Amino acid sequence: MKALFFDSFLQIKDIPVPEITSGDVLIRVKWAGICNTDIEITKGYIPNYNGIPGHEFYGLIHEAQDKTLIGKRVTAEINAGCNNCEWCNKGLSRHCPNRTVLGIINQDGAFAEFIKVPLDTLIFIPDSIVDTNAIFIEPLAAALEIIEQITIQKEHKVLLIGDGKLAQLIALVIHYTGCDLTVLGKHTDKLSLLTKQNIKTVHLDSFTPSLYDIIIEASGSSQALMNAISHVKPRGTVVLKSTYTDTSVFNPSAIVVNEITLIGSRCGRFESAINFLQKTQIDLSYLISEKHPFTNIIEAFRSSQKKGVLKVIVEMF
Amino acid sequence: MKALFFDSFLQIKDIPVPEITSGDVLIRVKWAGICNTDIEITKGYIPNYNGIPGHEFYGLIHEAQDKTLIGKRVTAEINAGCNNCEWCNKGLSRHCPNRTVLGIINQDGAFAEFIKVPLDTLIFIPDSIVDTNAIFIEPLAAALEIIEQITIQKEHKVLLIGDGKLAQLIALVIHYTGCDLTVLGKHTDKLSLLTKQNIKTVHLDSFTPSLYDIIIEASGSSQALMNAISHVKPRGTVVLKSTYTDTSVFNPSAIVVNEITLIGSRCGRFESAINFLQKTQIDLSYLISEKHPFTNIIEAFRSSQKKGVLKVIVEMF
Repeated sequence: MKALFFDSFLQIKDIPVPEITSGDVLIRVKWAGICNTDIEITKGYIPNYNGIPGHEFYGLIHEAQDKTLIGKRVTAEINAGCNNCEWCNKGLSRHCPNRTVLGIINQDGAFAEFIKVPLDTLIFIPDSIVDTNAIFIEPLAAALEIIEQITIQKEHKVLLIGDGKLAQLIALVIHYTGCDLTVLGKHTDKLSLLTKQNIKTVHLDSFTPSLYDIIIEASGSSQALMNAISHVKPRGTVVLKSTYTDTSVFNPSAIVVNEITLIGSRCGRFESAINFLQKTQIDLSYLISEKHPFTNIIEAFRSSQKKGVLKVIVEMF
Repeated sequence: MKALFFDSFLQIKDIPVPEITSGDVLIRVKWAGICNTDIEITKGYIPNYNGIPGHEFYGLIHEAQDKTLIGKRVTAEINAGCNNCEWCNKGLSRHCPNRTVLGIINQDGAFAEFIKVPLDTLIFIPDSIVDTNAIFIEPLAAALEIIEQITIQKEHKVLLIGDGKLAQLIALVIHYTGCDLTVLGKHTDKLSLLTKQNIKTVHLDSFTPSLYDIIIEASGSSQALMNAISHVKPRGTVVLKSTYTDTSVFNPSAIVVNEITLIGSRCGRFESAINFLQKTQIDLSYLISEKHPFTNIIEAFRSSQKKGVLKVIVEMF
């Protein structure tokens, strides 16, 4: 099969179709989305990375021991735990120290014709969820993780820093809580997408600092993290939603004096994303900037890093 | 009256006794304790500080509109709010943006013969609390603040970093939760005080890193903060209890990937400290290293910074 392989550089390779055991299924990938983590992998975020990236996808089951599964439209939880540790026992396999992570840690990802996933990570996509929403299940789950970690109330004044791919989804999720949300960004075109969703936005150039109950940092800038600490109310919460390639320098005294809570937030449960899509009936297709055939995937990677581009989809067949 | 004054350097001054209004009382200070914040003030922690430091004290009411109060043994909450803002309305005057803080922000402190405090900050000390415990009410309240902010369960593995004045009190408070506590320190003599309280300790030189549910950083070292982030379990909590004069450099990605919560913790409610002293019947006198007469206060400040010295008390009369 054809697969995108990263090993210090990106290349399309022809490799054998993965063999499945009774614990796995083989999925024929239909669409795969390019995420910032994929871009970071190509920039060396994970030292000695060697494999097929890609963790946002959906496809059709192609091979499984249970033949009734064949043809079903599915995606898969990206973290697969050992099922035998403190974390797996708590239902938190996404924190299992021995976990594999699809396309990221010790498991080949979705930028290939076929992908093998453990049966217990399989997520069936209800018919009511259209393809242009299905492709967002993974990042939407990550956005929803925030409201599983902290309680956002209607009276909360919330600032979201960032207007990129993930921030757009976070904005939708936070907006649905009914709180007083403002999104701070620096891309007029991306902010205008939020305005169309009736979400209050402010451009960095005209931002007048104020104090917020909750600040969500999703811009990936460590400078933004420092600003978040300065603009959150005493006893307020700063949610860190980006991973950072650079280090932060700050005086932790502000966190102590104002008793601020800083909380990191990563992957979420896919089930929550499916519920959200069904409950809100939202149409996320406006977040798809480009769709490329698989043969064009290296160009798609390049394109997804261009200014103004949001989600880039690779269509495998 | 005689008072210790700081204005770029420490000196004893003779100044008028404060005049009280109907909203204040005048306390004749009996004992005042030297805290690390006092030391930091003398090192320039608060730019342009100009006044009488000292916020750990007890004394006898000397003057009040209600004459029945005279002679009562009291201390006072150090934060006095405006009583008219979001924070004061929530009972969190210690986060009021317009608060005064005894001996720290806009209100003269306790290293003086007399101190004036607002009537509503007054805390009456029950007779059952001996003087050698009463002097610890303020820092003990700060230690107890941790368990008002986070829930520590018996099954939690907790690491406390630090063995100094405040850390000793934190250790007692955390030990009483019944959790699996280890205190990490670098002063053999201070660690042995904890061992005598049946608290598990480990010297930094023989520390084998492990993973903890909760790590409390009370050593004041920003390097310790970085270590705490590395040694806390995924989804674990790091409590920052020190204020830092230096900045920290760290890659916030670890906080995100492991979904760590970092929470700052400052002052607590005096009432909790009084309850704790009454409930536990603990004797804190072993934490007092030295007692100096007021005339010797500048030497007492010097002494409290010596290796191995814990609480230094200044006896005003």
